[in-house]
Amino acid sequence: MVGGGEGAFIGAIHRAAAALDGEWQLVAGAFSSDPERNRRSGAALGIEPARVYNSLDALLVAEAALPADQRIDAVSIVTPNHLHAPMAIAALDAGFHVFCEKPMALSSAEARLIAQAAERSGRQFGLAFTYSGYPLVEEARARVARGDLGKIRLVQVEYSQGWLSQPIDRDGNKQAEWRTDPARAGLGGCLGDIGTHAFHLAEHVSGLGVRELCADLTIHVEGRRLDDDVAVLLRLDGGARGTLKASQIAAGDENGLKLRIHGEKGGLEWSQMEPNTLTLRWLDRPAELVRAGGPGLAPSTLPRLRTPAGHPEGYIEAFANLYRSFAARIRTGNSDAADGFPSIEAGLRTMAFVETVIANAASDQKWSAVTHS
Amino acid sequence: MVGGGEGAFIGAIHRAAAALDGEWQLVAGAFSSDPERNRRSGAALGIEPARVYNSLDALLVAEAALPADQRIDAVSIVTPNHLHAPMAIAALDAGFHVFCEKPMALSSAEARLIAQAAERSGRQFGLAFTYSGYPLVEEARARVARGDLGKIRLVQVEYSQGWLSQPIDRDGNKQAEWRTDPARAGLGGCLGDIGTHAFHLAEHVSGLGVRELCADLTIHVEGRRLDDDVAVLLRLDGGARGTLKASQIAAGDENGLKLRIHGEKGGLEWSQMEPNTLTLRWLDRPAELVRAGGPGLAPSTLPRLRTPAGHPEGYIEAFANLYRSFAARIRTGNSDAADGFPSIEAGLRTMAFVETVIANAASDQKWSAVTHS
Amino acid sequence: MVGGGEGAFIGAIHRAAAALDGEWQLVAGAFSSDPERNRRSGAALGIEPARVYNSLDALLVAEAALPADQRIDAVSIVTPNHLHAPMAIAALDAGFHVFCEKPMALSSAEARLIAQAAERSGRQFGLAFTYSGYPLVEEARARVARGDLGKIRLVQVEYSQGWLSQPIDRDGNKQAEWRTDPARAGLGGCLGDIGTHAFHLAEHVSGLGVRELCADLTIHVEGRRLDDDVAVLLRLDGGARGTLKASQIAAGDENGLKLRIHGEKGGLEWSQMEPNTLTLRWLDRPAELVRAGGPGLAPSTLPRLRTPAGHPEGYIEAFANLYRSFAARIRTGNSDAADGFPSIEAGLRTMAFVETVIANAASDQKWSAVTHS
Amino acid sequence: MVGGGEGAFIGAIHRAAAALDGEWQLVAGAFSSDPERNRRSGAALGIEPARVYNSLDALLVAEAALPADQRIDAVSIVTPNHLHAPMAIAALDAGFHVFCEKPMALSSAEARLIAQAAERSGRQFGLAFTYSGYPLVEEARARVARGDLGKIRLVQVEYSQGWLSQPIDRDGNKQAEWRTDPARAGLGGCLGDIGTHAFHLAEHVSGLGVRELCADLTIHVEGRRLDDDVAVLLRLDGGARGTLKASQIAAGDENGLKLRIHGEKGGLEWSQMEPNTLTLRWLDRPAELVRAGGPGLAPSTLPRLRTPAGHPEGYIEAFANLYRSFAARIRTGNSDAADGFPSIEAGLRTMAFVETVIANAASDQKWSAVTHS
Repeated sequence: MVGGGEGAFIGAIHRAAAALDGEWQLVAGAFSSDPERNRRSGAALGIEPARVYNSLDALLVAEAALPADQRIDAVSIVTPNHLHAPMAIAALDAGFHVFCEKPMALSSAEARLIAQAAERSGRQFGLAFTYSGYPLVEEARARVARGDLGKIRLVQVEYSQGWLSQPIDRDGNKQAEWRTDPARAGLGGCLGDIGTHAFHLAEHVSGLGVRELCADLTIHVEGRRLDDDVAVLLRLDGGARGTLKASQIAAGDENGLKLRIHGEKGGLEWSQMEPNTLTLRWLDRPAELVRAGGPGLAPSTLPRLRTPAGHPEGYIEAFANLYRSFAARIRTGNSDAADGFPSIEAGLRTMAFVETVIANAASDQKWSAVTHS
Repeated sequence: MVGGGEGAFIGAIHRAAAALDGEWQLVAGAFSSDPERNRRSGAALGIEPARVYNSLDALLVAEAALPADQRIDAVSIVTPNHLHAPMAIAALDAGFHVFCEKPMALSSAEARLIAQAAERSGRQFGLAFTYSGYPLVEEARARVARGDLGKIRLVQVEYSQGWLSQPIDRDGNKQAEWRTDPARAGLGGCLGDIGTHAFHLAEHVSGLGVRELCADLTIHVEGRRLDDDVAVLLRLDGGARGTLKASQIAAGDENGLKLRIHGEKGGLEWSQMEPNTLTLRWLDRPAELVRAGGPGLAPSTLPRLRTPAGHPEGYIEAFANLYRSFAARIRTGNSDAADGFPSIEAGLRTMAFVETVIANAASDQKWSAVTHS
Repeated sequence: MVGGGEGAFIGAIHRAAAALDGEWQLVAGAFSSDPERNRRSGAALGIEPARVYNSLDALLVAEAALPADQRIDAVSIVTPNHLHAPMAIAALDAGFHVFCEKPMALSSAEARLIAQAAERSGRQFGLAFTYSGYPLVEEARARVARGDLGKIRLVQVEYSQGWLSQPIDRDGNKQAEWRTDPARAGLGGCLGDIGTHAFHLAEHVSGLGVRELCADLTIHVEGRRLDDDVAVLLRLDGGARGTLKASQIAAGDENGLKLRIHGEKGGLEWSQMEPNTLTLRWLDRPAELVRAGGPGLAPSTLPRLRTPAGHPEGYIEAFANLYRSFAARIRTGNSDAADGFPSIEAGLRTMAFVETVIANAASDQKWSAVTHS
Repeated sequence: MVGGGEGAFIGAIHRAAAALDGEWQLVAGAFSSDPERNRRSGAALGIEPARVYNSLDALLVAEAALPADQRIDAVSIVTPNHLHAPMAIAALDAGFHVFCEKPMALSSAEARLIAQAAERSGRQFGLAFTYSGYPLVEEARARVARGDLGKIRLVQVEYSQGWLSQPIDRDGNKQAEWRTDPARAGLGGCLGDIGTHAFHLAEHVSGLGVRELCADLTIHVEGRRLDDDVAVLLRLDGGARGTLKASQIAAGDENGLKLRIHGEKGGLEWSQMEPNTLTLRWLDRPAELVRAGGPGLAPSTLPRLRTPAGHPEGYIEAFANLYRSFAARIRTGNSDAADGFPSIEAGLRTMAFVETVIANAASDQKWSAVTHS
């Protein structure tokens, strides 16, 4: 693991998620660029001191020198955004699989360099689009794919948080600080941090690509340097229409990621904060509540479940599903998209999305095409 | 009452709403342009046959000729949209107050003619923006106005229906038929029918005007002549941002009107389908559920309630609150906006909204100003 | 109308409910035993002064003397409980139909006298078991009756209020005062006021009779003379088991009437505070949300609806459905139970319930039979 | 770990829960009494073959012989109920801490033998009353304890499942089979399996002991030998009243554990299936939604959280909180109740509850005292 030392948030989630199914063991790390903090973090995690490295480079060199049955299999990158690309490329080139936090990189150009590194190394590269790990997100995807809703007409996604409503980025909140710093977060603020999740979820579940978009980016908190609020009109494949709304100044909102998709015959709704219910509504019959662990689930949903119906699973379990898929990809060498695991292609799409939104919002152009090559 | 004969929907709602508090009595009408249907409708409603007229003109002439204590006080217009303006003007000019279904008219120009007629006649003109009649919509408005949420940053409104998902307008559904006919519905389909409700609710509760908008209008059902899906980005007074989404092809959705407003300190959420709860979320304390009839309500909310907490009131009661305010306006001659009753100004704003959306959506222009004079 | 003058609660609801569909007109009343208050109440309601009577007796005599096409059709009794029986009997014997608030009487003996009066007069007698007027209560009843759930095993009903948590009955709250006074309320406090609603709903929807019960009655507020909290174990026809919980000291609860019924194949749940959804859960398929106005409703539910799906109807509309059924019974002379209208039989059952609970709770006997003849 | 081999349910949950925080490592086990199945289970879990034992006795002997820094610290017992007591006693007497599934034993007598073994060995004994591990259960407990609700009047708990609605215990479902076999499950069926959870939760959160109860036990599925449905009236310390309902034949219900407590000033509600919200309702102000990770939490709730607000935690995390408390108890030697960890006292209470319910339900006695010594 790179990053995720004392005071970090997402590193601890990665560790819990990886531990949950017993498929991964944390044996080495470079948890902080501050040596003393790094040492303390490693000790707190029970890592053998010799494998607590002061930099990713040191880690890669030392681990690569270990016998194959002792060295790490993969590197988990949980640093601020600006380090994702250089670190991922270094780790791939050193022969390790990489599981990386989103967004993939600071730019499409950087993201493509990662793609090339993965290609030449033959290693797996996975991205933490956590929400695709939820069982009922897979259920939604499977049902859309098999045509339950008919031809898709509407895709509405929103991701609503309120934690940046005040200028806490100037008051010493480390999480807020780097996320609003263009040098470390990239060109998008809210856009990169959670807009990318929303975009990925929309394309992943609908199975449709966003062709054109029209965006409004706003900075509501005075003095902030990156957007804290995003609104986008979407035009998707096949004439479908959509909206994407992401905000980090929706005061009082927690982590409100919600997806609605409507087709000719019915609609579905999924909300991350109550993740174990997928609501299906129909033109011609009563709405249905499809439940995690309940009857009627798609075959691809079942392996994502650990508990019987009514025993709620949550965010860490969703994350753990990604780690499990990642392990399976490494074991089997298989990296086609059938397992729903978010990998390079998804990363490139989200980078194209971020760049298109930023360009569109800064221009008088109404509609901008979203492309990546 | 003009319109609202056999087979109509909204006329029966108006009648129930007006009857609920015993302030109005239906004593005359021109329910259908078909004489036989008109006669049958009048008879079914127990109207004295002599006061069942075959046209609005006949009604106005005959009623005006009655002694003041026998003639009608007001005309309720519940016809398709294209008749709203000519009928309202005729009724106002004949000296009657008018309560009219929305949208106010087919165009801003027509709407202004109504405004002039109201002005010259000195009569009240009210519009059926039903949703502002809900007690907790008033509660939301009052709380925003007194600053509970702090400066407003986000206004998100959506109105999601699915009943036009299939081409029922070509299959003999009368409600669907006229609503998708430009000659009777006006230039907006979904836009005029429910987009106007959403727009009115957003401005009414937030107290902010929409300054600019950027819109996408779509016809999803092949062969339909008017939009059945609307998505709009909003820029409001004081830097607030918003989105407005209206759809009549969201298959499986019923009457999903939902409003969310966020300020610097917290946010509120109200949903028409569960209208007796107003959810308030805060940066610094637990969310609150303000309930119709419960503790903590604003003084202006209380007169809109008929039952104690936990005895649900609904759509007809909300409508009845408009009829009650309308009666109060007539009794007192007062027509300032303090009672929250939607009148001419609101109607003109929604007409400007409809025209701006249509023009913007048809152009390459990104942002269009919403103005009315 | 008898009772329901200034300051009363339920009278105003009766009036709104009766007015809603235009089938009833309030033309006479004895609204208060205080002549001045009676006069003011009548004036406020727009009743012709000559028909505002100072007592029920005066009303019955005077109205009976009017020509048949001018006199009232029915008397609505909305007084405190102790007057229900004598007034109902007098009105029936004077040749008027009677619609009476619950509980029917102070005792089974009194209730039987009403039954006899109805029998000998040939007039209709209806009881305001309001909750059976909700469309989805009828839907639940119809589905149980047609066997959707299979053989019924569990019937759980609860009615939870908190408004008597403090000793407001000693602080001048008129509603609280008479409801906790044995002379006016009868032997049951919470039991008679809302326990009877819960009991009626359970038997009405399940179609099963309660055979035996075991009860605990409690007075939580010091100094109160009647129970404010009820808990009952039920044994029903065919081996079904149940629980009935009613409380008026569940602080913070509003009007939480909730019914759950489980059979061999599935279960249903209905909650009065969200009355437009009936949730069905199944052993072998996803749960369904049956919605007022939505697809899949039983034929007997449809006439109880006034609005399309998603336009919420509430308590007053449920009440209005009873008044509509009452009118239909009078028009047709039909009084079989097929219309779901709660009449004498239901009243006698609830009186037997009240008396059995009181006797059981005061004794060491575990199970007591609920019978009525 | 003893038990929890292939095909078992709860063993896998224990393993995930123990792994989540990195405080426990599974290093040895006796997973099945069938040697081949045991071997396969151990291999699948990556246990060193030498530490996969064919019986608990073999495990205890071999592990006790290992050096202190290699041997296991604690034994986790996840077998059917009849083995809990003998195994717990053996493990405690061999010097190991024990974490045991509920119910503690087949009888109070057995449970007391465990208590004595814990006493003489000086080892920790913990019970898997999982639901007390949820953060908002602790929040509820803390708020009741500090008097937020005032004096407690009502305690209502229910645990509703439907999975035993059909006679699957005769159709080869292993989970159902042993749970309905008196020899392995004990005297209570539904009562022992989930009624004990409900009872523990009620006493744990309310802080009140159940003094007397009156119960009805039913077998709904023909041929079943143990109750599948439980209903109990409760009388608690200080005059509080309560109800406990548990069922495994509530067809369509999943794992519906729900607790409501009302005091003089307000009430709280918690539902296991949406565990991250605690609803508080008040006499004098709007209801509040206290959220996991949100503002206003009690200090003792915070260490039970792993994620920020809006990132749902679930059943495994609740379980993991128990394992974390168990580890802390072992580390510190502290076993007072301040950490909320369910230990011997709670186990003895639930055994007394089971025995009292069975005796009461089989008798004509109305109220039976719940005691344990």
